[in-house]
Amino acid sequence: MVRANTVSIQTLRRLPLYLHYLKSVRGALPRISATVLADALGFNDVQVRKDLGSVSGNGRPKKGYETEELIADLELYLGCDSRTPAVLIGAGNLGRALLSYGGFSDYGLEIVAAFDSSDAVVGTTAGKKTVMGMDKLRTICEENGVRLGIITVPAAGAQSACDKLVECGVKAIWNFAPTTLKVPHGVLVENENLASSLAVLSKHLTGEDTGA
Amino acid sequence: MVRANTVSIQTLRRLPLYLHYLKSVRGALPRISATVLADALGFNDVQVRKDLGSVSGNGRPKKGYETEELIADLELYLGCDSRTPAVLIGAGNLGRALLSYGGFSDYGLEIVAAFDSSDAVVGTTAGKKTVMGMDKLRTICEENGVRLGIITVPAAGAQSACDKLVECGVKAIWNFAPTTLKVPHGVLVENENLASSLAVLSKHLTGEDTGA
Repeated sequence: MVRANTVSIQTLRRLPLYLHYLKSVRGALPRISATVLADALGFNDVQVRKDLGSVSGNGRPKKGYETEELIADLELYLGCDSRTPAVLIGAGNLGRALLSYGGFSDYGLEIVAAFDSSDAVVGTTAGKKTVMGMDKLRTICEENGVRLGIITVPAAGAQSACDKLVECGVKAIWNFAPTTLKVPHGVLVENENLASSLAVLSKHLTGEDTGA
Repeated sequence: MVRANTVSIQTLRRLPLYLHYLKSVRGALPRISATVLADALGFNDVQVRKDLGSVSGNGRPKKGYETEELIADLELYLGCDSRTPAVLIGAGNLGRALLSYGGFSDYGLEIVAAFDSSDAVVGTTAGKKTVMGMDKLRTICEENGVRLGIITVPAAGAQSACDKLVECGVKAIWNFAPTTLKVPHGVLVENENLASSLAVLSKHLTGEDTGA
């Protein structure tokens, strides 16, 4: 029984890890159990069994899953076969890295264009794409049916970039700027706050009790 | 009263956001209240008041905080004035981006060297640094007292890179590889899983109920 529509955000975040691991062992392990997968990834096996059961109906008691079947079920659920066109705003170091990073295509993400408000950056090439001025944003979003936007501008310009994306019909925003964004109902923002992660790591090194 | 040693991970993750925002308004707002800060960042004001109270003793009922005092308290708590030497393993696109990204220095992070296992990459320059072979890792870590390691290698090589870092005395690992890492007690791993974030965004666009 597949209960895809009741998958929690927490489960959803773990699914790509399962998929990535399964692909790495597909040749060696024709079958795999939730317990083996849990052990390999350092997760609780009850949780893994529950996660897999929510996206695949092919698990067998005691026998586990056919690795290829489970990979197919995960790819289908995660929409790896479908294509998600996206635009990126902010062609600085991080923006250029994401543009040239190939890993996202495994998950269907295709960054169709990059934009920047700086005349010094517009016209330069990043990841085989020519950075465009913000005035081109609406046209590109409409022509490509873009509903996902990636923000890699400095914090001060993040809300403005976010507002422009929303005006162009974007419904999901991946925010790498170290600030929170205000969006209308129905628009999802996923914050990738590197500074917060760094704070946790640095504090661990100072020996503070962070209540971890 | 400062209760820095009882700050939770969740609070710790929010502190850099407060600091970043306060720096952006330091000229315009000589004083700021937890309520104003909460509104600006979209947080619950009770939570913000609690967060600030845990790292600064300078808040006044009704009056709030002197902006500069609060910035100083946050910088002190986050160790922005101290220097955290780090090494990075994996000089691919993401690794190179982190090497050339200036934003981390605001938080005391200094990536002293970059390493890669590929002969094709060793010797190339990334962010004004020459990428070194893995055989140099121990010496560099010892010479610089490195206890923080950043992993930007493909998942298949992540555990090996992690083990080498731990062998060299690293106590905190920032993992950008889409896999979980096994480390001994006392070593903290902070996972930066971009694929998981992407899964959440993509699923939102497909209109699934992710129980958000």
